[in-house]
Amino acid sequence: MGRTSDAKEKILTAARSLIELRGYSALGVAEICKTAGVPKGSFYYFFESKEALALAVIDEHWAAERREWTRILKDDAEPLQRLRQLFEATQATQQAGQDSCGTISGCMFGNLSLEMSNQTEAVRERLQEIFEAQVEMVEAVITEARARGEVTVADTRTAAQSVVAQLEGQVLFAKLYNNTSPLNALWTNCLALLGARTPVQV
Amino acid sequence: MGRTSDAKEKILTAARSLIELRGYSALGVAEICKTAGVPKGSFYYFFESKEALALAVIDEHWAAERREWTRILKDDAEPLQRLRQLFEATQATQQAGQDSCGTISGCMFGNLSLEMSNQTEAVRERLQEIFEAQVEMVEAVITEARARGEVTVADTRTAAQSVVAQLEGQVLFAKLYNNTSPLNALWTNCLALLGARTPVQV
Repeated sequence: MGRTSDAKEKILTAARSLIELRGYSALGVAEICKTAGVPKGSFYYFFESKEALALAVIDEHWAAERREWTRILKDDAEPLQRLRQLFEATQATQQAGQDSCGTISGCMFGNLSLEMSNQTEAVRERLQEIFEAQVEMVEAVITEARARGEVTVADTRTAAQSVVAQLEGQVLFAKLYNNTSPLNALWTNCLALLGARTPVQV
Repeated sequence: MGRTSDAKEKILTAARSLIELRGYSALGVAEICKTAGVPKGSFYYFFESKEALALAVIDEHWAAERREWTRILKDDAEPLQRLRQLFEATQATQQAGQDSCGTISGCMFGNLSLEMSNQTEAVRERLQEIFEAQVEMVEAVITEARARGEVTVADTRTAAQSVVAQLEGQVLFAKLYNNTSPLNALWTNCLALLGARTPVQV
């Protein structure tokens, strides 16, 4: 009972939804199981601890987001246009979240970085790996754009980190104001941060 | 007993320190009182609720930070140099925090924005006011720089918000990596975001 094949998935879905709504610290195992509709015993059958569950939620969310980032950033479009599409997709995702539940939940990885990175080293390390992967994906696109003479930036790694930092900062404002309009600035700011040589077709 | 003149200050100090370490949700009133060394009864003598305490902690922290921002941003130095000094002061504060307690605690307002803005409207509104005040202070400096022909930005408000967003995003990375080096990029990125006309003396 409760250890049916879908109990683990139900726990993950409930945990993800509760973490997006209220963060990690405010959650208890009992509440997660109640929301998931599974007995508490099944939680510890699938997960060693609340931390193990958090890591599983993070991994599942990143697997989906990485597929989306890969689809966009490894596309055939011109490099800077791919970055633009990434920002538009981010805005669309946040808008869809607001449309469905009334609030903008922001970036799960940014949320958990600020909430948890000084509390559990396992979560800190996982989030570091995810942001490193994001920065690498953005850096690859910047490197392509530079080879085409479209951007003038000297240090592609630092530039990529700055683009992701700008994204996280504007998503913070979108969440705080419960309004996606701060994300409108991402494309222009990205061009400025990269020292784009010429006005890119918009 | 416990309602002595310094009990309120002790509760605020303990709460601030615990919020910086672990965020708001993970805290209980009993723990705050134990850390402060005051009986639990005095908590409710001074604060109606944990939320009221959070607002008091936020207000006290912003009063101190606003004094620092005002000192730097309303200085006689050239406008862009004042922004540079703001970034250097931010980096020094984060570094001092790490030197004293081993971890970078980040920006309390950014931390609480991501943790709490979808949980309590009173905290959300207070944090909105604080970030609006920060953006206004930065915008005033950008407007001065533009009047001197040093920056080319069209919309000073959006530019100021982008500078603060970049600050929050890089502070997020500093906290995640427990390393202040992402903050090294703030000055160069600020010049890029503002479309600084000429290489400013560094």
